[in-house]
Amino acid sequence: MIRLKVNIAGVGMIKVSEHWDKSIVDLATEAGLRALEDANVKHVDYLIISNMSGVFNNCQSDLAVAIADNLGLLRIPTYRVDAACGSGGAAVNLAYNIVKSTGKRVLVIGVEKLSDSVTTVNTSSMMLAEDWTTGLVSGGTFVSLNALALKYYLTRYRANHDKIMMLPVIEHKNATKNPYAQFRREITLDMVKRSPYIADPLHLLECSAYGDGAAAVVLDVNKGNVEILASEVTTDAFRIANRDNPARFNAVFEAVKRAYSKSKITNKDIDIIEIHDAFSITGVIALEELGFADFGEGWKLISEEKIGLNGDLPTNTFGGLKARGHPVGATGIYQIAEIALQLRSDAGDNQVDGARIGLAENIGGIATTAVIHILRKKEMI
Amino acid sequence: MIRLKVNIAGVGMIKVSEHWDKSIVDLATEAGLRALEDANVKHVDYLIISNMSGVFNNCQSDLAVAIADNLGLLRIPTYRVDAACGSGGAAVNLAYNIVKSTGKRVLVIGVEKLSDSVTTVNTSSMMLAEDWTTGLVSGGTFVSLNALALKYYLTRYRANHDKIMMLPVIEHKNATKNPYAQFRREITLDMVKRSPYIADPLHLLECSAYGDGAAAVVLDVNKGNVEILASEVTTDAFRIANRDNPARFNAVFEAVKRAYSKSKITNKDIDIIEIHDAFSITGVIALEELGFADFGEGWKLISEEKIGLNGDLPTNTFGGLKARGHPVGATGIYQIAEIALQLRSDAGDNQVDGARIGLAENIGGIATTAVIHILRKKEMI
Repeated sequence: MIRLKVNIAGVGMIKVSEHWDKSIVDLATEAGLRALEDANVKHVDYLIISNMSGVFNNCQSDLAVAIADNLGLLRIPTYRVDAACGSGGAAVNLAYNIVKSTGKRVLVIGVEKLSDSVTTVNTSSMMLAEDWTTGLVSGGTFVSLNALALKYYLTRYRANHDKIMMLPVIEHKNATKNPYAQFRREITLDMVKRSPYIADPLHLLECSAYGDGAAAVVLDVNKGNVEILASEVTTDAFRIANRDNPARFNAVFEAVKRAYSKSKITNKDIDIIEIHDAFSITGVIALEELGFADFGEGWKLISEEKIGLNGDLPTNTFGGLKARGHPVGATGIYQIAEIALQLRSDAGDNQVDGARIGLAENIGGIATTAVIHILRKKEMI
Repeated sequence: MIRLKVNIAGVGMIKVSEHWDKSIVDLATEAGLRALEDANVKHVDYLIISNMSGVFNNCQSDLAVAIADNLGLLRIPTYRVDAACGSGGAAVNLAYNIVKSTGKRVLVIGVEKLSDSVTTVNTSSMMLAEDWTTGLVSGGTFVSLNALALKYYLTRYRANHDKIMMLPVIEHKNATKNPYAQFRREITLDMVKRSPYIADPLHLLECSAYGDGAAAVVLDVNKGNVEILASEVTTDAFRIANRDNPARFNAVFEAVKRAYSKSKITNKDIDIIEIHDAFSITGVIALEELGFADFGEGWKLISEEKIGLNGDLPTNTFGGLKARGHPVGATGIYQIAEIALQLRSDAGDNQVDGARIGLAENIGGIATTAVIHILRKKEMI
């Protein structure tokens, strides 16, 4: 089997915000056009759209064709992929597999439009990502399930919650320099601690917020200076209750193991990472599953010195889900686009000097789906 | 590029019905298990789920993982694909591309659960397939848009509506022998003509009905006696208003042209077909786009002699969308499973003698997405 190399030939993003004046199709189109322009291409062979809640919030199925039409990209194979909050990563994984085996060029656009939605029942909308039949109907919400994970983690590992609450503080600092970030202002540990509980022990400022956004990447075998070394997606028990330890993300562990193995690198080779901090706790657990800390000790890594923009392992360098924003189906693509910008040395004020290899971790539900991408700067010869 | 041959190694279906006692996950699981059993395999490398309205009607995103978990198929790449009513065909197309280029085995399950839904606003639910922003808000429904196409067709081509109304009559006859069909009773032309208008000039009995269902296929490079000769998906203008002729399905025309070209066959080689008769008129237009009649003359083909089970070109041999049923995201997979049963000579009372090559036409929206599959019986050597 011939297996081609796959590059990121172009990226495009819009600011995560409440885009009251634009439709879901408008947002996706804008990001898509920017990625095509960045890649300096007009034609692609496939269009893949990642989105979670468009059928629920925007009453639009066949969304991929609506976007294809607006982009002038009809008459090519077009699909929409949904894996909840992991949709973006899953769509890039699918595109990666298509490009790797066919040599065709693929445009992937992730988009989510949560404000100005038809249904405006956003708690329900987020719970779409978890088991509806045993979850929401028994009183669980997406926030409360993550709060339980945090409570469990704090108790079992005697972790310091203050340390964990530094994650959003560091991320907000990174976001101040990101023109596409939802929240471009610094926050302090004190502000996080004094912010109201959304679901005890999770504070408001430990949670990513609702936001509209779109991000896009062009994958190609020839063009582009950033190579995708590995792309892995796997899944875990759908119901949290069926897992041994609610503070473990087995799917992330498994996906990253495969990604390290296939790319023949270890976590020691990684210069920068993007972790899926939908909540502070999900970011902490990610650090452990990715191999950067022992289980139960990820919280000890949360400091400027360790994961700040100038730290040992710069993490969520553009603000992460908390501060750049978490437009669900687009999030995984923002992550990959941001890593690509870093490896291209196009990260502007957020640039991490000498970044050569980056890793993006994107999850759907509470790590029900896990997607790992490892990207490498192509060396000039 | 090595391009492997792709076979249908197994199929599984459940009866299209109102399954009040089963969840969307239950339905998909049942069809999936039947396909695995039929293929005599336990393991697959990928799981692809096709579904349109699960996020809307069943409040479940990440549906693919819910089904994977129930099937005991965790820890493999899993995606959900949506292309409205064309989701099933699009998912098989995606699976085909994966198998063809990787040699891996893929299980594709299409499922839709419309009864007992959380929202129960089924007219809205169907309109998800069309442009929400300019369609439904200006008074269009999915039925009324198809009624306009029928009215236009009848006027422009001076077509005989009675002939067109024979399509459901023939299909209901075929469905009487299909254990998985939603409506296993015969109807007469008189019954169709006297059934109430749903949207003038479309009668109730010219429209497919709401139904829950699930169908599955296993694709494999080694196993299976039916080969997929061609799998093509393409798209057309999202808004009907932007098309030159509302009685033409350009995407179907384009997709089938590519499919004939790639498989090196013509419409003369086709023994049986499945057409996407969501409404009588969509079936008639399909016959024209597929090359079996000139434009504006497809209605002349609608007779037992021509498209009946013992006719020149047996069509929708298990009842089609009208009588077998149209569980949206599953429909394209029922079509392919039924063609496969015919080519395997496993069609029981519905068997078409000597069927060697079959074609399935599946559309999303009003042919916004079009998917064509051509299947061939593998000759024993």
